[in-house]
Amino acid sequence: MTFPAANYARRRDQVRKLLRSRNLDAFLVTAEKNVSWLTGFTGDSTWLVITADSDCLLSDSRFATQIEEECAGVPARIRDASMKMLELLQECLSAFQPERCGFEGHSLTFETAQALQSLPIVDQWTPVNWEIEQFRSVKDREEIAEIREAVRIAERGLAFFKSILSPDLTEQELSAELEHGLRRFGATGCSFPSIIGVGDRAALPHYRPGDRKISEAPFVLLDWGARLPSGYCSDLTRTMWTGKTPAGKGDRTFEKVYKTVLHAQLSAISLIAPGISCREVDAAARQVIQKAGYGQYFGHGLGHGIGLDVHELPRFSQLSDAVLKPGMVVTVEPGIYLPGWGGVRIEDDVLVTRNGCEVLSSCPKGWDSVTVNC
Amino acid sequence: MTFPAANYARRRDQVRKLLRSRNLDAFLVTAEKNVSWLTGFTGDSTWLVITADSDCLLSDSRFATQIEEECAGVPARIRDASMKMLELLQECLSAFQPERCGFEGHSLTFETAQALQSLPIVDQWTPVNWEIEQFRSVKDREEIAEIREAVRIAERGLAFFKSILSPDLTEQELSAELEHGLRRFGATGCSFPSIIGVGDRAALPHYRPGDRKISEAPFVLLDWGARLPSGYCSDLTRTMWTGKTPAGKGDRTFEKVYKTVLHAQLSAISLIAPGISCREVDAAARQVIQKAGYGQYFGHGLGHGIGLDVHELPRFSQLSDAVLKPGMVVTVEPGIYLPGWGGVRIEDDVLVTRNGCEVLSSCPKGWDSVTVNC
Repeated sequence: MTFPAANYARRRDQVRKLLRSRNLDAFLVTAEKNVSWLTGFTGDSTWLVITADSDCLLSDSRFATQIEEECAGVPARIRDASMKMLELLQECLSAFQPERCGFEGHSLTFETAQALQSLPIVDQWTPVNWEIEQFRSVKDREEIAEIREAVRIAERGLAFFKSILSPDLTEQELSAELEHGLRRFGATGCSFPSIIGVGDRAALPHYRPGDRKISEAPFVLLDWGARLPSGYCSDLTRTMWTGKTPAGKGDRTFEKVYKTVLHAQLSAISLIAPGISCREVDAAARQVIQKAGYGQYFGHGLGHGIGLDVHELPRFSQLSDAVLKPGMVVTVEPGIYLPGWGGVRIEDDVLVTRNGCEVLSSCPKGWDSVTVNC
Repeated sequence: MTFPAANYARRRDQVRKLLRSRNLDAFLVTAEKNVSWLTGFTGDSTWLVITADSDCLLSDSRFATQIEEECAGVPARIRDASMKMLELLQECLSAFQPERCGFEGHSLTFETAQALQSLPIVDQWTPVNWEIEQFRSVKDREEIAEIREAVRIAERGLAFFKSILSPDLTEQELSAELEHGLRRFGATGCSFPSIIGVGDRAALPHYRPGDRKISEAPFVLLDWGARLPSGYCSDLTRTMWTGKTPAGKGDRTFEKVYKTVLHAQLSAISLIAPGISCREVDAAARQVIQKAGYGQYFGHGLGHGIGLDVHELPRFSQLSDAVLKPGMVVTVEPGIYLPGWGGVRIEDDVLVTRNGCEVLSSCPKGWDSVTVNC
């Protein structure tokens, strides 16, 4: 259990309120991180049934002790290897006799959803999609403290990364060193496989570290994050100049692209406040990039929520109807990617406050700090 | 591209054969590892449409260059941030005009499956579940070579782990050191988060490393594996005696449990051959454990296939109807878990051959090699 039991009980009460508003007798929670958020359980393969006045975890014997330790006060039913999950669910629902039961259609597979329909005990299964993720998008005080800590550890990771950067190290070697460093600083590991791209590899927004050496090009992009034992994540990106000639003189394109991305990011951040739509924030960055003539080279959304998942609600994109609320924690990460040349992305983690926002990450990103000696 | 383009083309032809046998005009592949297995693409968020005479990858601009590099000869359609995946699919299918289209109901969410039904272009969407996973369960020569290499690197990892084992190290510290070592030996990382459990923590089959020190109990369980850049995995477990008194004298229960698990594992392995059912293999191990009086303390299945996923088909369990075929690679991992005392699990990776099987892993597991000095 990461947080006080009362936090988890409060969250399950949010689901009970949802039951009432949707006229449901029970809700089957199957998305791993939703189960985690509602109970404190950090394992997998475990479902949660919530009714008007009870909760029940459904799991198997691998997790029996872990549930006892992590989920004080949440009743659990445990199956052994000879029993299927759906049989256990049937057994559990028999006790509640719900007529209308909600399920998570956005995370449950079509196959399992079909199997649910065949359980004799429930009259009607209703998909209730993304609702718990909506709850999760607004963080409580304890969660914000965890994300702050995940940012702090990631920033220690960056300092370590810069300290060991040298011409002969490959992207892969640096990736291994960075994760090892993050663990030494208290993370369980990276919150996702780090993206480390030298030169033209930086033009691949989802690149995985390969055998390029730092010396093969004058700049490197690092997109990394730390995950705490509690499961909470950070997600940051910096693009660094490692060339022998000074940044601007070594590559005029780099200077123009870098300053455009930074301008785009700061413009977007300056808009972030409760009541602002995610589409507007995305547009603020996109306009700066379009105006500089790079519109077609920014192909992804501007950012996303972070928490137990490294990609959560809300999403900053041209298609998003979401509106910012106090307690949301989001990334702001515009990028410009020129195929064959390389790319620049700058990403920070931002907390929406009552009046505006607070940038949780503080590692330098100004043009004057872009050079790393190595 | 990991393997010759011909390997991937041959696999896509297996799917075309499936199309004919199911009377389908097209098949939409959405499971990440299935797309990978059929094209060589190692990224995510990408779908594949296969028809009688064509293939088409559907992705977004983040992956455009990666697809060009990894999937030579597979046509691709790329969307930008303003277009949804379903719109791109619609556009792609418009070119093929399929009446009946298969989809992966075991991996696609209920929500997305419902959205497919609303696409005007297809008359009938048919769930086709676990078929590509069935194909994947039988490995070709190149895949077996990759898994051999993943086993070899994992075993180098074990030698390294033993070499640094010392009383003051915690489970978490050892976990970080092990992954760092595996990367040094050529892995991209662990194939799953290592399970390192000291003493009673070894009774939790899905435990995650905590702050227990090696010196806090006389034995430690290590379940680990390596993932290669190609994506192929190994998965092994050893339980080691680290106590000051010799293994048998220090804890008689440990000796009895260890020897029972080893006997169970060897009994199961000796059965493995083409034509044998997975249920029989599971039963062989289970009977040994039951006979020794520990039946209720072996709550999970005996093992599973490994490949691009660390858990693949087939599954060894009391419920499995699967039958072994040459080219399958499976784990055999019986365990006995006594709550409050601890557990023992021994796991090897086994290739089903034409006449029987070959144990791919060779790190010692006999009672005489159970002690590690530290």
